[in-house]
Amino acid sequence: MAGPLRVTIWNEYLHEIEHEAVRALYPDGIHAVLEAALEKLLGDSVQVRVATFEQPEHGLSYEVLSETDVLTWWGHAAHERVDDEVVTRVYNRILNGMGLVALHSAHASKIFRRLMGTTCMLRWREAAEKERVWIVDPSHPIVDGLKDEHFEIEHSEMYGEHFDVPPPDELFAISWFEGGEVFRSGCTWRRGKGKVVYFSPGHETFPIYHNENVQRIIANAVRFAAPSGGLYLGKGRNIPQPLSPIAAKHVVDERLHKAK
Amino acid sequence: MAGPLRVTIWNEYLHEIEHEAVRALYPDGIHAVLEAALEKLLGDSVQVRVATFEQPEHGLSYEVLSETDVLTWWGHAAHERVDDEVVTRVYNRILNGMGLVALHSAHASKIFRRLMGTTCMLRWREAAEKERVWIVDPSHPIVDGLKDEHFEIEHSEMYGEHFDVPPPDELFAISWFEGGEVFRSGCTWRRGKGKVVYFSPGHETFPIYHNENVQRIIANAVRFAAPSGGLYLGKGRNIPQPLSPIAAKHVVDERLHKAK
Amino acid sequence: MAGPLRVTIWNEYLHEIEHEAVRALYPDGIHAVLEAALEKLLGDSVQVRVATFEQPEHGLSYEVLSETDVLTWWGHAAHERVDDEVVTRVYNRILNGMGLVALHSAHASKIFRRLMGTTCMLRWREAAEKERVWIVDPSHPIVDGLKDEHFEIEHSEMYGEHFDVPPPDELFAISWFEGGEVFRSGCTWRRGKGKVVYFSPGHETFPIYHNENVQRIIANAVRFAAPSGGLYLGKGRNIPQPLSPIAAKHVVDERLHKAK
Amino acid sequence: MAGPLRVTIWNEYLHEIEHEAVRALYPDGIHAVLEAALEKLLGDSVQVRVATFEQPEHGLSYEVLSETDVLTWWGHAAHERVDDEVVTRVYNRILNGMGLVALHSAHASKIFRRLMGTTCMLRWREAAEKERVWIVDPSHPIVDGLKDEHFEIEHSEMYGEHFDVPPPDELFAISWFEGGEVFRSGCTWRRGKGKVVYFSPGHETFPIYHNENVQRIIANAVRFAAPSGGLYLGKGRNIPQPLSPIAAKHVVDERLHKAK
Repeated sequence: MAGPLRVTIWNEYLHEIEHEAVRALYPDGIHAVLEAALEKLLGDSVQVRVATFEQPEHGLSYEVLSETDVLTWWGHAAHERVDDEVVTRVYNRILNGMGLVALHSAHASKIFRRLMGTTCMLRWREAAEKERVWIVDPSHPIVDGLKDEHFEIEHSEMYGEHFDVPPPDELFAISWFEGGEVFRSGCTWRRGKGKVVYFSPGHETFPIYHNENVQRIIANAVRFAAPSGGLYLGKGRNIPQPLSPIAAKHVVDERLHKAK
Repeated sequence: MAGPLRVTIWNEYLHEIEHEAVRALYPDGIHAVLEAALEKLLGDSVQVRVATFEQPEHGLSYEVLSETDVLTWWGHAAHERVDDEVVTRVYNRILNGMGLVALHSAHASKIFRRLMGTTCMLRWREAAEKERVWIVDPSHPIVDGLKDEHFEIEHSEMYGEHFDVPPPDELFAISWFEGGEVFRSGCTWRRGKGKVVYFSPGHETFPIYHNENVQRIIANAVRFAAPSGGLYLGKGRNIPQPLSPIAAKHVVDERLHKAK
Repeated sequence: MAGPLRVTIWNEYLHEIEHEAVRALYPDGIHAVLEAALEKLLGDSVQVRVATFEQPEHGLSYEVLSETDVLTWWGHAAHERVDDEVVTRVYNRILNGMGLVALHSAHASKIFRRLMGTTCMLRWREAAEKERVWIVDPSHPIVDGLKDEHFEIEHSEMYGEHFDVPPPDELFAISWFEGGEVFRSGCTWRRGKGKVVYFSPGHETFPIYHNENVQRIIANAVRFAAPSGGLYLGKGRNIPQPLSPIAAKHVVDERLHKAK
Repeated sequence: MAGPLRVTIWNEYLHEIEHEAVRALYPDGIHAVLEAALEKLLGDSVQVRVATFEQPEHGLSYEVLSETDVLTWWGHAAHERVDDEVVTRVYNRILNGMGLVALHSAHASKIFRRLMGTTCMLRWREAAEKERVWIVDPSHPIVDGLKDEHFEIEHSEMYGEHFDVPPPDELFAISWFEGGEVFRSGCTWRRGKGKVVYFSPGHETFPIYHNENVQRIIANAVRFAAPSGGLYLGKGRNIPQPLSPIAAKHVVDERLHKAK
């Protein structure tokens, strides 16, 4: 790919404005912490912009999307208020190659559920318990640079199984929770020409996005989800002329096909 | 499972009524041929009923669906006229365990596309060419009883790659077409508690559903897609009490969570 | 399949003889508990026999294997003393359709490692800690009949990630351990015409094989791993005559190919 | 990764010496064409060396392997003469992160079969027939830069299904053959920390490695198979001290464990 990877960080950006406790952790919004992390870890190889819920078209105009290679998504309170037309626009862009990195509560976003074809529901508990993230695929580029088999998040929201998603194409992380649950916390899927990553650690009332291992994984996920440059069609295409010769043997009723 | 497997064969049943050429091949409808095949091959282990597009609620009332273990689907001309509420009803039933066997042009049905999260589009050509179906997973129960590495369909409609579906969880057949294309013609996916099978051979203007290998695969697919009896949730569930003890260490702001 | 499923339970059967603590839990051997469980849960649909390490050919003669549809394997202390020729014999039988259900410490057996192509190594700790088994694929026939999202084993040996196996074709269970690890405890893979299941709960110094959920899963796994009846080749086959006509265009140098 | 990707091209290099017809196509060996292709397409981002069968240790000393990030493998006539110790060395290096790109007849090499755990056998015919390679995963980085849904190879050796490998983790290409077969011609698998790619087009008596689409895919495969920098263990590790506290409840018999 010529030039830097163009990343758009989408943040709902409501909790940070409404709640002092959230603002204390993310004074300039979750997006600002993610943006700084990507710039620190990926440098000139990325060019980052931010879009939020309250902007016109949620900040995701056709123009912005056409200039986006990878979109990260953090939403929670306003899932149902995201405009359906924008969701369809993002969906089409993903099928045509834009990567999606869905973060934490984005599991319940319209765009993620539409790509998955399932409810994407799960168990959850907000008890500030310990989460220990285990790497289960050391060959995956998304875990590149991690120093150990696992890392810890001191205070986390529990997300637990059964997580109602299709079996992931790749599973790179499983989380252990102090209170007794497990969770497939790092997953990838292919949809059309686009790559989809889900990574669950991250919550508005805990400083998880300041964790350097979490930042490393998100930066790697952005790189992994970069579009490949080949062809994609995603539409029906009638090919009346065969590529190789067909023995003449059967007259298809022309009237029938015209009628259809 | 106690008692026979309850199968509902859904057939659009429009082409057979409108076109003499189709009626010549399927005088009582495609569903009648499928029904006879399931009864011949599976005997008392199944109990089959039929539903069609023109019936009230397309024949798929809540009652019918609640008494269906596996639904087979053949549609083509009326995909867009299938009622959205019925589609949602079928979708929910699949996530809760009902199997779906999507046949041929059902790749473009609303229900299949919703489960996949992609366009499900493909190349196609109706030139009565030869199709040769190759078995690529001899361990799969869906190919149980086939006698050779491949079988032939003398006159078929070509469906070709790229087929815009998520990578199948299991790929059991790939088709070769005389005119030069290939196609992943036998695929399975898991969605929620339900199993989804797609099998492409089968077309209204060719006698493909009379082919004994095709019938064998569809019968095996019905058995494979039978529901498993375990638990499924598919909804968010807050679990405030941990299963194992959590060290007290962090007071979560109650006001914040009430606000959300 | 006509007739009952023919199951051979292979048990190393050394710990039970040598150690009183093991004998107290499994007085007639681990195999006896598994045999009783399969007969209780599967009844006349299975026909069970037992083979052990100390028998001639480890109880796995060509005749026994040719009459076995599914083999379960429990070994630990004598992995390296299992005869290579018997391992090759079992391996060939699996590729030709016999199912394998590998239990607990069988992860390190010669047969399992040969099928996987990796080290199959893992973390472990014997501290009698709690294991909680979470079902992550409620659609899978192996979890049929389980009543809840998870079940507990009060005292277990910890097996933890990273578990060095190929990504499983299907992942149906993940275990949580009190001491802080997670483990992909229920996995399946396809090899040739055979199905391979790995299920980790089960240990000689804990009464885990008396647990009814564990027994249910092993019984379901045996059924799942039953052979399918189709064709398998697993050998190179030169097909000089094409199935469809090839345009004459290139003379392949006969001498060259004779020389090879 | 700092510095260029270090690639070792392994070529058996026997056919080119023994047969004039092969030498006419590959006068300096298949490796020379591959080397030129990688250098043309990947430039300074790779550093390429060559190793061949007749060299001491087949050119694959510990030193060479320790300085290799990705190994490509072409072999045919001498598979069984490759030294087992060298195979084990390569195998261990792959599990520890080195990528492997197995080309054409390498499907039957010792190293590939050991990683797969199956026979890796297939149908084949040398009739100079047309092969048409279809891209079935347009999101995959290995197909980056291809201009169409498919490309053609005018004269090819047929490799056909059933191909006895484990279901690939990713399937990016399926080939159509004029004579009637299909083949999963582009596959990837994960083994330990290493990535394995298989790509079938390529044969000593046809100029396939001069084809620019084939060269593009091999170059992309080399990049894809580059090692990730995280941790890998691949050995058993006893962890007597739990990471999180365990309730005291069960005294494990020390004598028993000493005995084992």
